[in-house]
Amino acid sequence: MSQIHPDLKVGILGGGQLARMLALSAHPLGLTPAIYTEHADDPAAVVAPVTTVAGMADAKALKAFLAQVDVATFESEFLNADLLKKLSQETGTRIYPAPEIMGQLQDRLTQKTLLNTLKISTADWFPVNTEESCDVAARKLGLPLVFKKRRFGYDGYGTFVVKTTQDLEKFKAEQIPNPDGFIAEKWVPFKRELACMFARNVSGQIVHYPLVESFQKNSRCFWVKGPIAHPKFKTWVPKFKKLLEHIQYVGVMGVEFFDTRQGLIVNELAPRVHNSGHYTQEAFSINQFELHLRCLLDQPLTLPPANGKGFAMVNLLGGEHTPEVRYPLSAKAKIHWYGKKQSRPGRKMGHINVVDSTPQAALKEALKALRGIDV
Amino acid sequence: MSQIHPDLKVGILGGGQLARMLALSAHPLGLTPAIYTEHADDPAAVVAPVTTVAGMADAKALKAFLAQVDVATFESEFLNADLLKKLSQETGTRIYPAPEIMGQLQDRLTQKTLLNTLKISTADWFPVNTEESCDVAARKLGLPLVFKKRRFGYDGYGTFVVKTTQDLEKFKAEQIPNPDGFIAEKWVPFKRELACMFARNVSGQIVHYPLVESFQKNSRCFWVKGPIAHPKFKTWVPKFKKLLEHIQYVGVMGVEFFDTRQGLIVNELAPRVHNSGHYTQEAFSINQFELHLRCLLDQPLTLPPANGKGFAMVNLLGGEHTPEVRYPLSAKAKIHWYGKKQSRPGRKMGHINVVDSTPQAALKEALKALRGIDV
Repeated sequence: MSQIHPDLKVGILGGGQLARMLALSAHPLGLTPAIYTEHADDPAAVVAPVTTVAGMADAKALKAFLAQVDVATFESEFLNADLLKKLSQETGTRIYPAPEIMGQLQDRLTQKTLLNTLKISTADWFPVNTEESCDVAARKLGLPLVFKKRRFGYDGYGTFVVKTTQDLEKFKAEQIPNPDGFIAEKWVPFKRELACMFARNVSGQIVHYPLVESFQKNSRCFWVKGPIAHPKFKTWVPKFKKLLEHIQYVGVMGVEFFDTRQGLIVNELAPRVHNSGHYTQEAFSINQFELHLRCLLDQPLTLPPANGKGFAMVNLLGGEHTPEVRYPLSAKAKIHWYGKKQSRPGRKMGHINVVDSTPQAALKEALKALRGIDV
Repeated sequence: MSQIHPDLKVGILGGGQLARMLALSAHPLGLTPAIYTEHADDPAAVVAPVTTVAGMADAKALKAFLAQVDVATFESEFLNADLLKKLSQETGTRIYPAPEIMGQLQDRLTQKTLLNTLKISTADWFPVNTEESCDVAARKLGLPLVFKKRRFGYDGYGTFVVKTTQDLEKFKAEQIPNPDGFIAEKWVPFKRELACMFARNVSGQIVHYPLVESFQKNSRCFWVKGPIAHPKFKTWVPKFKKLLEHIQYVGVMGVEFFDTRQGLIVNELAPRVHNSGHYTQEAFSINQFELHLRCLLDQPLTLPPANGKGFAMVNLLGGEHTPEVRYPLSAKAKIHWYGKKQSRPGRKMGHINVVDSTPQAALKEALKALRGIDV
């Protein structure tokens, strides 16, 4: 296990709410978070010494930033993996998760290939980037289909549901060819969506938080509740541990599932802290942000018992106007505002966590608190 | 209740660990903490935008700082109350707790007078500042006596235990007269020391956390455990609420007790967040730092149920060398480092919180975690 000197700097690439909460968790660990972000008033920039305000493609600024920190991580997997790999080698500063892994997971094609190679079930899929391959995908997988951009898709952006042959013709005409390419996925009828946060440190220790249910509204995470029992989860975990071991993953990883008649199917992996893990801030004394930092620093990983028998999180999604900062009236509801100066419809402005006697009681309390805030 | 705009700045006078934890709790509330401190690398300065690096007696810098924040508070009651009152009036920025109250409570003589006026028991005491008054105190109260400087005493500094007439002569020769003056207190044989954190908002709502036991080592807080049941506490609370109401107190206040054969005796009041309340960070979803901020902003005060049936805190007190930053192996033990660059014997470098099935189990676990860290 590594030793940590009192001035140890953890570089965080990105300035949004995930970077902000990583920085807020770094302070009590005695670490100095250094933020690399595009705007000086970004959510993460105001909770830590801002080291660099520059663009994510600015190789010179990135190199200077990496040179001054002891270890680095990121809040979004959609960075230039090759550039980061090169700069990490030049500066000798390790970036976790490793840029190669970020590159492999940021692309749905290589991500799904990895999952299937390790015999982890996903929806049936087919790579497409020509009109012909779209037709082949439709013939092989059948309609409805979901076309997803291989990279840079999130919260529904870059996703196209194709139900009819007319939809298919429209999709081909409007989207093909595309420089990023697509994969076509067979439509999966699912009962609910589930998620779980895993963590692996440099030495190879692996732990995970409980399975939770997540509910999306307009393709954005709206709420999460847990813990959730699923009969297949226990046998699924060892397979996924093999995957983390196989790629020598370091850090926290979010896994999103479809719960289907055929069992648990992985929807996607997020090589970072994740919205579906925010509940850990109140449900566990060591939350996902602290756990991620412990992974990078090769600290022992152990998870404490949960603070309650049920927990829930609801997102504060923005409307037309920037909301007043309000606090829930319920003492059980803990608020986390992200300090964003402007709202947009659907923008994640904050979230509310509740710990209660059951998952359903926690969710009910969180939704009640949300109504009182009226974002 | 006040409305809160998204840019609301809370000024914090001071840059130590209490200011740091106030700032860390301000961020999730969507507030912008502004730090006024003497050194740019102080514990609070690195977790928030630092507005001002200047001395606490620098009237010009203090005025400019107050002018740019919406409301202000402080981490130490030993500031110049008259100056702050004047600057608050000139800038129109409210300071909570009010400077007059800070002034009244920073002086043991006026603090004890206030307590006794409201019929709250303290040790018998007598004001002294001449050799003659020392002799009168010894005659009236009997030996042993404790002489305490009226102001600026903390963690045993400014406190003199006088057991014999020889001790008394030595004290008089070495300490009298003194510009700050003293009070003499009758020695109180106590079973244990207890503490409780109260909070009152601008509108007058009052809540309090549970009673806890605190244990001092070399006059410094070493551990806290709770909750503690005491047969007299329930009838004591309404008396203390009257005191808070009487002085129109706003903010969190720490109360330290001696548990004696005669019942609960107040040792001292701290008009601020307090070391004996750090356990609230893990034991409650709303901790003392958030509660203090809610008071200043006149937000509704409600306390959630505790996260467990027992909780404890141990301080990481410095030795000769600045310690490595280490993390407890126990997953139940949550670490809070203060980011101090240098250690001194007895200096508060951080603390550990544990929530467990009983107060004693929590304390045992916290002390075990402390041994593994070896400050």
